[in-house]
Amino acid sequence: MTDLVNRQWTVAAHPTTGLDLSDFGFQESPIVPPGDGEILLRTHYLNVAPVMRMYMMNDASVRTPERSLSIGDVIHGRGVAEVIDSRHVDFSVGDFVHGQLGWQTHKTTRVTPQEKFIRMQPRALPAYYGLSALGMTGYSAYCGFMLRGEPKPSDHVLVSGAAGGVGSLVVQLAKAVGCEHVIGIAGTQEKCMAVKSLGADDCINYKTEDVDARIAALMPDGIDVYFDNVGGDILEMVLERLRLHARVVMCGAISEYTRKEPFGPRNYGRLRSFDADMRGFFVYNHQPHFAQAEDHLAALIHDGKLTALIDIADGFEQMPKALIGLYTGANVGKRVVRVNAGTDVIY
Amino acid sequence: MTDLVNRQWTVAAHPTTGLDLSDFGFQESPIVPPGDGEILLRTHYLNVAPVMRMYMMNDASVRTPERSLSIGDVIHGRGVAEVIDSRHVDFSVGDFVHGQLGWQTHKTTRVTPQEKFIRMQPRALPAYYGLSALGMTGYSAYCGFMLRGEPKPSDHVLVSGAAGGVGSLVVQLAKAVGCEHVIGIAGTQEKCMAVKSLGADDCINYKTEDVDARIAALMPDGIDVYFDNVGGDILEMVLERLRLHARVVMCGAISEYTRKEPFGPRNYGRLRSFDADMRGFFVYNHQPHFAQAEDHLAALIHDGKLTALIDIADGFEQMPKALIGLYTGANVGKRVVRVNAGTDVIY
Repeated sequence: MTDLVNRQWTVAAHPTTGLDLSDFGFQESPIVPPGDGEILLRTHYLNVAPVMRMYMMNDASVRTPERSLSIGDVIHGRGVAEVIDSRHVDFSVGDFVHGQLGWQTHKTTRVTPQEKFIRMQPRALPAYYGLSALGMTGYSAYCGFMLRGEPKPSDHVLVSGAAGGVGSLVVQLAKAVGCEHVIGIAGTQEKCMAVKSLGADDCINYKTEDVDARIAALMPDGIDVYFDNVGGDILEMVLERLRLHARVVMCGAISEYTRKEPFGPRNYGRLRSFDADMRGFFVYNHQPHFAQAEDHLAALIHDGKLTALIDIADGFEQMPKALIGLYTGANVGKRVVRVNAGTDVIY
Repeated sequence: MTDLVNRQWTVAAHPTTGLDLSDFGFQESPIVPPGDGEILLRTHYLNVAPVMRMYMMNDASVRTPERSLSIGDVIHGRGVAEVIDSRHVDFSVGDFVHGQLGWQTHKTTRVTPQEKFIRMQPRALPAYYGLSALGMTGYSAYCGFMLRGEPKPSDHVLVSGAAGGVGSLVVQLAKAVGCEHVIGIAGTQEKCMAVKSLGADDCINYKTEDVDARIAALMPDGIDVYFDNVGGDILEMVLERLRLHARVVMCGAISEYTRKEPFGPRNYGRLRSFDADMRGFFVYNHQPHFAQAEDHLAALIHDGKLTALIDIADGFEQMPKALIGLYTGANVGKRVVRVNAGTDVIY
């Protein structure tokens, strides 16, 4: 190994209302050689996701999958990394993993179920697939939509956050199932075009269009599956337009994360009329299905039926800007930071 | 037929906040002989249910299964009746039905699927069973709990409104399934004793006890199935205490019906952490399963495993008081009015 320094992004201040460059701190620290049973990882790609701001807030009233962060902590974040030194019998130099790396260029770690590192299969694809279709994003789309949404070919499917990492995969999974009607919701004209290019029958721009009227016009017979990434007002609109036995898959609620008062859908009682379900979904509850998800998604990629909508930001120094941009709606597809600017790493 | 006059309760005023005797009107009208394809029914038992106040409110913002009522309309209500005259080929004098009779002693009606009359099987039981375990109440308990709740013997089950018509049957169905732990919630000491006498392991008095603390103490491992008859605050408490793959069956929300502002559970996002479901339920969506439900329940009654908790008010003139009493929590079990005071009719 020739790397000498570990670069890290940390919490400089707890964000309150928005998110600002001054909330982030940068530091360098020495690389720790792996001890017995440990591996040393070099980060190639890092994910940015809305939940990261919640970790940084450190607000006891906000529940997050990972622990909240204190001032000075390295920010949580998943990534794709290469094993560059190993004292673990199951890992060799040159192996790739995806998992919880944190916002840093190197990590020395044990490999245990708690650490949530998943070894990647070599597939001669850019390694960032481990952060999109062939990683947690893909597992979320597959387990959330296929296992919790239980789509049938006769279903009319609506997907919010349809240009995002998970949403863009769900749109393609719905088409692969043969769902009769697949409509996306996204926040810019450019995103809507991307969603349609993935096979959606249409896409609603929630920033410029009357979402409720558009849903009514595009889905006059109602909704069988709503894959929800946003929560809030759009969820309430959808609850008025369900069909019998509809399923609302609760994947995310980005529109609610910045509300001061907690939100509850005031018309949740509409589920009764349709014997419809709201189905909570948390991808880590589905670990036994990750391999099945990855095989399914890899087969679709191989058959040309699935593309990863990737939005690559170049350079580790861009991490804070890449996260802030998520809240201003700048990304089309899954946002990933390529740690070393330049060409993609193939694995 | 010797009956001469049809007595009826009507809407005298639209209730706004509460419900008062002055909201009801009484009238007599002639009995209409059945025309071709019609039958004439004599009412023996009438149901009273919280939803009736909503029909009387005639508030366009409140959705109800039946149409809202205008001043002077006969109040909606289901009952058990005997055919006393028939010009319909499939019905003979002496047959019994349960269905939408309205608050009146007689009804001349067509018998169509829209009219929702269901012919009772003679079982040598008091005919009020057609309004409880062997009618819509029983179908609600069976279809809601068994089909939507999907209980397993390992499940820990919580039932609100446990002394009510549906809830008291659900408690017994849960015990019949062999559910590990069955806890009820009810509003008086007397009701709680009744719920325990039906086999519940314990019952929480929500008027005198700290419901959240009691749930925590009685169900330390959390809740697998919550059969919800009340909605509101208790629903929010339950959402904090779910187990993986929990199911909240949304049968009713009586605590919300009198709220001025619509209620949405502010922590519905907790469903995500547990891959838990809120499952809407409306009994009329389950018509294909009514016969199966009735057979299942009749077998349990026959085996001594199920009792109908019945609260009988005597006399047609008691209808308004019987309904008002539901809101003040006076009934233990399903409230039924015996139209002709005296002894029960066996069918």
